[in-house]
Formats: sequence, C-alpha cells, structure tokens
Amino acid sequence: MQENEHKLPKGFIITTAEAAIKTPGRKDIVVISSTTPAEAAGVFTSNVVKAAPVTLDMERLKDATAQAIVINSGNANACTDQQGVDNAIEMSRIVSDALHIDKDNCLVASTGVIGAQLPMQRIKPALINSLFSAGTAVPNPTNATLLDAASAIMTTDTFPKAISRDIEIGDCTVTVAAIAKGAGMISPNMATLLCFVITDLAIDHTALQLALTEAVDKTFNKITIDGDMSTNDTVLALANGLAGNERVVAYGYGFHSFRVALQEVLMELAVMCVRDGEGATKFVTVKVVGAGTDGDADRLARTVANSLLVKTAIYGADANWGRIMAAIGYSGVLFNPNVVDVYFNDVPVVTNGRGANNDSEAGEIFRRNDLTITIDMKSGQGAARIFTCDLTEDYVKINAHYRT
Amino acid sequence: MQENEHKLPKGFIITTAEAAIKTPGRKDIVVISSTTPAEAAGVFTSNVVKAAPVTLDMERLKDATAQAIVINSGNANACTDQQGVDNAIEMSRIVSDALHIDKDNCLVASTGVIGAQLPMQRIKPALINSLFSAGTAVPNPTNATLLDAASAIMTTDTFPKAISRDIEIGDCTVTVAAIAKGAGMISPNMATLLCFVITDLAIDHTALQLALTEAVDKTFNKITIDGDMSTNDTVLALANGLAGNERVVAYGYGFHSFRVALQEVLMELAVMCVRDGEGATKFVTVKVVGAGTDGDADRLARTVANSLLVKTAIYGADANWGRIMAAIGYSGVLFNPNVVDVYFNDVPVVTNGRGANNDSEAGEIFRRNDLTITIDMKSGQGAARIFTCDLTEDYVKINAHYRT
Repeated sequence: MQENEHKLPKGFIITTAEAAIKTPGRKDIVVISSTTPAEAAGVFTSNVVKAAPVTLDMERLKDATAQAIVINSGNANACTDQQGVDNAIEMSRIVSDALHIDKDNCLVASTGVIGAQLPMQRIKPALINSLFSAGTAVPNPTNATLLDAASAIMTTDTFPKAISRDIEIGDCTVTVAAIAKGAGMISPNMATLLCFVITDLAIDHTALQLALTEAVDKTFNKITIDGDMSTNDTVLALANGLAGNERVVAYGYGFHSFRVALQEVLMELAVMCVRDGEGATKFVTVKVVGAGTDGDADRLARTVANSLLVKTAIYGADANWGRIMAAIGYSGVLFNPNVVDVYFNDVPVVTNGRGANNDSEAGEIFRRNDLTITIDMKSGQGAARIFTCDLTEDYVKINAHYRT
Repeated sequence: MQENEHKLPKGFIITTAEAAIKTPGRKDIVVISSTTPAEAAGVFTSNVVKAAPVTLDMERLKDATAQAIVINSGNANACTDQQGVDNAIEMSRIVSDALHIDKDNCLVASTGVIGAQLPMQRIKPALINSLFSAGTAVPNPTNATLLDAASAIMTTDTFPKAISRDIEIGDCTVTVAAIAKGAGMISPNMATLLCFVITDLAIDHTALQLALTEAVDKTFNKITIDGDMSTNDTVLALANGLAGNERVVAYGYGFHSFRVALQEVLMELAVMCVRDGEGATKFVTVKVVGAGTDGDADRLARTVANSLLVKTAIYGADANWGRIMAAIGYSGVLFNPNVVDVYFNDVPVVTNGRGANNDSEAGEIFRRNDLTITIDMKSGQGAARIFTCDLTEDYVKINAHYRT
C-alpha cells in the first residue's frame, strides 16, 4: 500500500460552494460525485434522534447504489421535522438535476448546530452556481481537491482530515481516498462523525458494506472525545469500479487487501480526529488486557477514557492512577481489584491493586503528548483499545460559546 | 420541624485535630462520638474498588451498633492494600482506647487522594493529643461544633455543609444533625460522598437503616457533578436514643416524622454539594416526565445531566436544546423523538421534537444561576429528577492540579 498524498480515485469529481450557512467567508458545501453510478455502503449513528439526512440516506442506500454525496457544514439539519427532510431532498435534487443522475442516487450529510432549519435561500443559489457554468444550464462542476472537500466539512476542527492510498489488485492500481471531520460530540457507537470514502475499486456491494462496517467498528468506534454521541454520525463509501480490477466479492480475491487498506485509512482519520479533539493537547491510548471478555475490556477502557477526572489529570500531567482505579471500579464490570496492574507506557504504577511507587517516572510519562495507559485485569483473555484525548479549559471555552 | 442552626443532638461530642495529612494549617481529622452506644446504619459506594475504611465499616456495622466515627480528609486510604486496612484499624483503636468504648464500635471514613498511605506518624499524635488532656491519660475530647466538623472533612469544597433540625415525637424534642462533603468525583449510585447523620432519637436499627437507605436514594443518589463515582462514598447514621422518646420502629409511631426530617436534611446537604460542585456557577434540575418507566426517566435525566456538551452550554448561557435532544437520543432508552417536548423553566423550547422558536426567552433562562430543564417524553408515567451543575474552566483547573 502506497501513500499517495491526496490523489482522487478515477472518475470522482469534487465541487465546493460557499453558502454562508453559519458564517460567511468559507466553503461550507461539498459535492462528491462519480461519473458512473457506484456501489454504496453506509454506517450511521445509533442515536435515537437521527438528523434528516441520516434517515434519508438510510432509505436511499437500500438499493446499495449512489453516484453523489452533497455535504454541508454549519448546520446539522437535526430536530427539524418534515421541513428538514424536505430541505435534504431539495439539496439532493439540485445536485442530481445538475449532474443528470438518478434522483435517488444522491446522498446527503450535514454537520453543525442542531435544531435550526437550513438556510435554503442561500444554499440553493450557491449549489447551482458551483455546479453549472456561470449563467448557463450546462453542468460544469468545479474541480476542487480532496483537501478542499475536507476543509469544507469542518466545524470546530482545526485542520482538514484527508487521506489517499493506492493498492494493487491483480495488475490494477486502486485508489482508496477518504475525508473526515471530528472535533466534538464524539463517542460513536456503531457509527461516527462524518466520513466519506471514495474508491475506484470494482467491488460487490455486500463486500463493500461488510468491509466498511468492520473498519468503522475497529477505528471510529474506538475513539471518544467527550462521550457525547451525535445525531448525525455518518460514514459513506462509494466504489465506482473504474480501476478496472476483477470485481471483488466478500472474502474473494482482493477483498483482504481492500479491507486492510480501508482500515488503515479510517484509522489514520480516527487518530487525526482524536488529535484534533476540541481543546485537546494529548493523545491517549487506553488499553485493557486480561479482562473476562472483549466486551468487558471495552467497557473498562471506555469508562477510563470518558472519566473527566482521568482526562483532567492527564491534561495537568498529574499521574493520578487512583482516578483510573476509581473509574474501572464504577464501570459496571465486576472484578477483583487486588490483582489489577496498571502501566503508564512501560512503567508499572499499580501492581496487584496498590501503588508501585514509580510516581516520578509515571509523572514524566504524563508530561508527554502521546501516552498509553495499560490496565491488566489478570482474569481472562478479553482485550480492547480506546483512543482519547485530555480535557482542557479550551474544550469548555469552545463548547460554552459554540453557537455565538 | 424546626431549623435549629447547628445544634448537636444530646450526648454527641465532636473533637477535631490537625495532622497536616495533605497540607498543614487546618483541622483535618474529626471524631464524632456518643456518650452511649448508638444504633448505627450505613450506605456505601457501589464502586468495586472500595477504600479500606469502607470495607472496615461494612464489617463493623453488621451488629448495627457504633459509638464513634473518626474521619480524615486529605487522603482517601484507597488502593492501599493490607497496610491501609491496618491503618484504618489503628486510627479507630486510638479513638476507642481514649473514649473507653468497645473497639468494634468505632467507624472510620476517609476522603482525599487515592493510592497514598495515611501519614500515621502525624495522625497518631494529633489524634491522641486532641482526645486526651494534654500530657495525661485522661480522656478529654475538645468540644468542637458541628460546623467545625463539617470544615475538617472538606477537600475541594469551598464551604462547610452542616445542618440541624428539631422534630417533636410524642412530647420529646429530637434533634437530627448531619454534615457532608462533596465537590468532585460525584455521581453516587446506591451511596454517595461522605455524610454523617447523628440524632438522639431512640430508634430500632432496622428502622434507622430503612430510613437512611431510602433518604440516600431520594437525595444523594439524585445528584451528579462529573459522573465519576468515588471509592469512598459513605453515609453513616448514629442514633443514641438520649432524646427519651418511645423507641421508633419501622412504620410505627414517629417513623414517618423521622423519615421526612432525614430526607429534608439530606436533600439540603445534597443541594449544597451541587452548589459547591467543583468550578460550578449554576444549579440545574433535570426533570423527565412521561417516560415509560421511572428507570427510563432516571436514565434519560442522568444522561442529560452528565453530558459535557449540555453542561458547557449551560455554563456559556447558550440555550442549545439540540444537545439535550442528542443526549436523550444516546441514553439507551428507546422512544419516538417526534413527540418529545422540552421546557427551560416554563418556556417551551422543543415541541414534538422540533424547535419552538423561543430562543430569546430560553436564552434569558440560561443566563440565570438556577434553572430547570423539563423533558416530557409523552409516552408513559415514568418520572425522575436529577440535580447537577455546569462544567466550567475552573473544574478543569481544579482537577488538573489536584495533587500538586
């Protein structure tokens, strides 16, 4: 697998537009389209309160085909009732009309403030102007880059998150590219934030969905920033087949290569999302081993990763392992505290449930920007790994005044 | 029921001592003792990781009798292994020797940093000096006040929490007094923080335990500050019978009066703990009505109360009801979002799942120091109420540098 900066897969075109949805002066709409219909797959938020575009996409993905995605930042189009659904449909209709594609083959995603209606009076002309040649009815999407697309979907993100990889399948070069936005309201479960994967791979839609679901579960579902799960979490994948490889089917030739590449791409984006967590200064891996089951391990790791007291201790470089012990203790998992070991990187800080007297070494590790907390429950084979960041005054500042 | 400032019940004596456990210059040990053995009851943390004094008290309360409690702040004596248990026993032994009480009748409670051993070399002489007349072996506890006791058990609390009430049972005046400490690591479940209730009521120990368990469940178990549950949460009650009333039994004469008084006392302390939440500037009541069950209502209310995004929005006076909808959506409770109503005080902000366009009125309420968020699920009779506070930069500051 070769890193290939921000190369677009064959047949994909990106158009951006500026509609001043939340604030003027930046591109806040992206259209990703393929010159041919693509196999499509999606993973969505498990939040009971789903944004209008999420319910629309879930419906439109039933035939596993799509040709375009229109995405806006600055407004989540969530809790917006029938008008929200109508607006999502209208956005997609403008795109499918301009690009002459089937109207059900345009998907929609939104991110931003919940509860406000989309400013359609600004979105419509902006979309139309960017998709057609000025003053004509001739479709002429602007050729923006993958990085432009990643920038346009940012909300409180501080840097765009885009990645592209080439893999060889048979004698064909296949490109897998993706963009994501993260920052806050991040604690996915069965889905996450916004992420769009495009590839020129020829693949069966069942295989695409399988690979996507698995990759999301292993990457975005393992990160948490603030424990808040969004109404809009959406991961979409479009595969248009223009690389010309023999069509990949589940567990057939090429499936493994694609699966690995997809997981690597999503993991890099997931890690970027944590590094760009609102106000975050540190990247933290919480690893649990020796738990009764993988499920128990996940619950223990997640409780530690979401503990405000652990996150503030990491921020303050206070190697306060007592807070980690307290957090696993209220995780809901039963265990014997007197056998638990805890390590900060390789330094033992708790041995058999009590302090290992390595406070100064442990403190040194807590002053680093990247650190791993390993908790060995010593009672089974269950393991899990969760990625998170610290909690800082800046997280509070950003979120106290998000709408203003 | 009469408020009676900080009056002590008959036969109770308070002694404080200074042992520089975390920092010098303040009283950090309290002994609460009764001149006669008392009926005793307790409610403890459900954290799997329990501090040494918690396990000791659970054992010693099996006979439902106690005569003294020794409490220290500055060190939690948690994750301290057998030496921690030995130190807790040693603290209680000094007290029982000095006061000539049965050694199993002295309970112990600790609060502060987890994982460090108690500085027994300072605690022992400090305790002995305060309990005996200087230089002699004659017991002579200092007569400190209820407020002195409340001050000595503080950690990051900014004010002492003490309360005393008189009730009439038959022709006897009964005093119910209590102290508590709170501030952080507060999300009790089946128990909470530290709270000590003393009363001269004559009551059967089963009735005392029943009243205490119920009162804790209705008060301390309804507050959350940061969602972190402590290893040391302890509520103890001592009733020495010196008021001379006819002995109260469960559901018998006087039981209802005591129950009500106890709940009122604990509720006032619980509210004080929320008001004094680390860095808190606002007191928030999250009320859920119309849920399928009380359990669902509790889960919904707790998820909203613990959402970092809701708490920071409240701090920033941003009436961002979308975050409330997102939080109930990931609570784990299934519901139809399109029937949900949300009110800030009496102002509807969400009606049938969408914005009610009262943003300016709603914003005005979010600028107040006390506010109520009411969520009507409109699908049943389940109701719950949780008390919480906002999340501020100061919470982060306090907890980033707690040990230093």
